[in-house]
Amino acid sequence: MQDLDANDITDAVIEQMAQTPDARLREIMEAAVRHLHAFAREVKLTPEEWLKGIATMTAVGQACTPYRQEFILLSDVLGLSRLVNAMHDATGREEVGTETSLLGPFFRESAPKVALGGTIAHIKTGPEIVLFGQVTDAAGKPVPHAQMDVWQTGADGLYDLQAHDPSVMDMRGQLNCDAEGRYHFRSVKPLGYPIPMDGPVGDLVTRQNRHGFRPAHIHVLISAPGYRELVTALYFADDAHVDSDTVFGVSASLVIQEQLGLPDAPIAGVPSIRYDFTLSLDTGSGGGRVGSDPSRLVPAG
Amino acid sequence: MQDLDANDITDAVIEQMAQTPDARLREIMEAAVRHLHAFAREVKLTPEEWLKGIATMTAVGQACTPYRQEFILLSDVLGLSRLVNAMHDATGREEVGTETSLLGPFFRESAPKVALGGTIAHIKTGPEIVLFGQVTDAAGKPVPHAQMDVWQTGADGLYDLQAHDPSVMDMRGQLNCDAEGRYHFRSVKPLGYPIPMDGPVGDLVTRQNRHGFRPAHIHVLISAPGYRELVTALYFADDAHVDSDTVFGVSASLVIQEQLGLPDAPIAGVPSIRYDFTLSLDTGSGGGRVGSDPSRLVPAG
Repeated sequence: MQDLDANDITDAVIEQMAQTPDARLREIMEAAVRHLHAFAREVKLTPEEWLKGIATMTAVGQACTPYRQEFILLSDVLGLSRLVNAMHDATGREEVGTETSLLGPFFRESAPKVALGGTIAHIKTGPEIVLFGQVTDAAGKPVPHAQMDVWQTGADGLYDLQAHDPSVMDMRGQLNCDAEGRYHFRSVKPLGYPIPMDGPVGDLVTRQNRHGFRPAHIHVLISAPGYRELVTALYFADDAHVDSDTVFGVSASLVIQEQLGLPDAPIAGVPSIRYDFTLSLDTGSGGGRVGSDPSRLVPAG
Repeated sequence: MQDLDANDITDAVIEQMAQTPDARLREIMEAAVRHLHAFAREVKLTPEEWLKGIATMTAVGQACTPYRQEFILLSDVLGLSRLVNAMHDATGREEVGTETSLLGPFFRESAPKVALGGTIAHIKTGPEIVLFGQVTDAAGKPVPHAQMDVWQTGADGLYDLQAHDPSVMDMRGQLNCDAEGRYHFRSVKPLGYPIPMDGPVGDLVTRQNRHGFRPAHIHVLISAPGYRELVTALYFADDAHVDSDTVFGVSASLVIQEQLGLPDAPIAGVPSIRYDFTLSLDTGSGGGRVGSDPSRLVPAG
């Protein structure tokens, strides 16, 4: 007969899950149950608090749509996304490439192609900038014809998905680097922005007295055959929130600032940023997209 | 500048949550982040696994309706509900009352009134049983006119909400005990049943090679002024799953079996169960409903 107290309930659950055929699922669920129970015991979670937690998780799930992933947002503001990212960065590669950052909820497959030197700003206007540089391996050897996805907010702090009908794509594009791995494109300077504050995750962040802002940044995803896909972002040094990103995405090595008169700037008279990316060899340890196109997780109703 | 590795990301998150005005919320979220990160580090959660976790949590949230609470079900099969229950039982009362059990997802406010000696089985048929006994305090003193809610499956293993339109209530009722705390009512013997297996929690339980069954039981909720509300259930000894309840609700002291010819049985010729309930004094430590009417968590669309 089961006669469980607060101490042995954990073992009873693990025992009932012990016949899980998938060894990795068993390992993950056992650890999840141990840590979940240890949390509840540590804070002496009461029935009322448990019910509030159930209500919050339910609200997060119900806020998800094909264009909004509230559970990724929850993972982001609790630092879990950054942690998974950091662990993935630290394993499975023999040489050090560019640091990664979060994919975030606004990546979309199939962004419009942009020629080198073209612009990703079709609708939005604002102070113009140019981003240029080179994609190499860890030894400095150019990676020819790497494919680069870039996406960002405009000077209004909004992504296309937030400002327009989902059929419109703006402030995003796919570039092909040249035979020497070089790239350059025009854009407008992005503005930092709060995470979506009108849902349950925004409620939590508000109750925690957090500002809820991400510093201005440009997302970059680079892929080339034989190399690990690089998911990263470049953050503007002059943003007031560069040291307090609500989703913990900033690393010092990813901080940038536009400047006039840079050597090698491909377009004169426009404030420019040079950033050279370093790809790691693909060692088969799996993809690194901490994030996803939301439409892959919640099918359109 | 934030320059975080997998070890110091946790402190950075806790620091950003440190200005939470509600001290209890701060305590709970700090512990939640520490345990969540410790889990991810322990299993070395990969980006692909993280994404599967996000997809599962999203599916659980999207499966919730005004008549189905999939997050409570997840909490149940992971033993969290039982743990919160057990901790609540062990605190805040000076004397030992009847052990509690899970409220579960099928409790409904405002069940039909049933007179003492009446039946709660209006539509469903099956082998008849009688439940009778007395509600007392820990010293054995009768609690006069305690209010008792009972609800259960029929001989088909279904609750009314699963078998009928939500407007129909069957196999549930509200009784008022007499001046000596005595109660008796007619019913039919319930059948054990699987938890809802057609959603993401059922998928998990299936992947864990668990049978997914709860043993046959009768839910009981008793309240009386000055006493802590008692939420419990009585489990049938002859059910094959009485030792392996998928949601860990069974305690030895809550196991029953119907018998013919019991002394004091109020209705002759019907297999009867005597169960006396003991209420604890209300010490103001809050309610103990580990569960909720689902319509309170997800408003009807």
